Amino acid sequence: MIDSVNNEKIVYFRKLREAKYIKEEGKYIVETEHLVNEAYNAGILESLIIENSTDFDLDVPKTIVSRKCMEKISLLKNAPSVMGVVKLKENNTIKGKKIVILDNVQDPGNVGTIIRSSLAFNVDTVVLSKDSVNVFNDKLIRSSEGTIFNVNIVVMDTLEAINTLHEMKIDVYYADMYGEKEVSEIKPERYALVLGSEGKGISKAVKEMADKGVKLQMNSKCESLNVAVAGSIIMHAWR
Amino acid sequence: MIDSVNNEKIVYFRKLREAKYIKEEGKYIVETEHLVNEAYNAGILESLIIENSTDFDLDVPKTIVSRKCMEKISLLKNAPSVMGVVKLKENNTIKGKKIVILDNVQDPGNVGTIIRSSLAFNVDTVVLSKDSVNVFNDKLIRSSEGTIFNVNIVVMDTLEAINTLHEMKIDVYYADMYGEKEVSEIKPERYALVLGSEGKGISKAVKEMADKGVKLQMNSKCESLNVAVAGSIIMHAWR
Repeated sequence: MIDSVNNEKIVYFRKLREAKYIKEEGKYIVETEHLVNEAYNAGILESLIIENSTDFDLDVPKTIVSRKCMEKISLLKNAPSVMGVVKLKENNTIKGKKIVILDNVQDPGNVGTIIRSSLAFNVDTVVLSKDSVNVFNDKLIRSSEGTIFNVNIVVMDTLEAINTLHEMKIDVYYADMYGEKEVSEIKPERYALVLGSEGKGISKAVKEMADKGVKLQMNSKCESLNVAVAGSIIMHAWR
Repeated sequence: MIDSVNNEKIVYFRKLREAKYIKEEGKYIVETEHLVNEAYNAGILESLIIENSTDFDLDVPKTIVSRKCMEKISLLKNAPSVMGVVKLKENNTIKGKKIVILDNVQDPGNVGTIIRSSLAFNVDTVVLSKDSVNVFNDKLIRSSEGTIFNVNIVVMDTLEAINTLHEMKIDVYYADMYGEKEVSEIKPERYALVLGSEGKGISKAVKEMADKGVKLQMNSKCESLNVAVAGSIIMHAWR
């Protein structure tokens, strides 16, 4: 059982909470039994970090540590007693016939929520633009409730993704309050949907390259919706 | 211009960031020009707190303070240069024909997002159960994008609200993955919709008192949706 927060393993785990090291090492840490189980079921759990006296086991190597060490590694207010080291999946292939593209979406809670909805509504691939939040962001993973381990996630420049989708003969829509089609007017079997950043919406370049804008009919007193809400309503309508 | 963080006005503003004092004083503070403007337009802005040298004015009393004081009062990482003191609206009357009830929903981001959607989809009243997050929670107000100032918000025990709605002859639905109706099967003109807490869902007592469960058809790989997403999809469908 490791008790010292200066132990080299604890120092290593602590480093694995920083984007720079995660990218170098190709692995990151997830917290709580629920997320560890989801990662294990998805086949990407490399090892366990467990607080001593905790009754939890899976068929992977484990490191037993003290409460103090769990607190050192954790990013949560209350450190859990179970964490896991997870393999960072690299993927450049857009697959399937329902695709969501997040163009510079920054809020990790919104991105996690969209990924959760994408699994619910049969979306095959979620593309994150390179300027969106990191896929291994702790809050993103928690907001996704671990569904991120089961969705094909691709990190790719938005315009490159639109190009690729056009080569795949898939129409690219974007969510925009001035879009020419209301969501319920159409129900594409195959689609890509671009969701823009919280503050700025859809960029001019995306509007020019994409095929159609899609809007949600709403009360004129309201200027816009949360991006995860708008995206999920469209995904649900086109499920 | 007030420069000292120990000035009695600054001490008072700082206290107005705590639930206890907000309830005693019947007022709270909102941050950023956007939210201050929204509060002003809704007629509930009492006064302005402005950083010296900031070019912003509205037809209410103002207190000019230093950057240091703004930082003392702010709950944000980067203190803005405009804040406002807002009157806490007390309201016990459920109005209208589309009502959403939040039963013990704790996440302020989720509640704010639901309120934002409720304005978009013609919901007249949002009821927060007494054990939900406080209506003046800073993150809630920011997530609502200020729409909270334009929605009729009632704080009331959930079962009492259901009783009241039954007296108003409004059917009470609850969102539940085992609900007997799929959202698109029905389109009630008048409805109340209960949304349950993130962790526990809908309580047994609510299921017994309410009229019908409503579900969203989704992929079996996904266990549940974010509560703001689920609620917004139903509100959109029944707008």
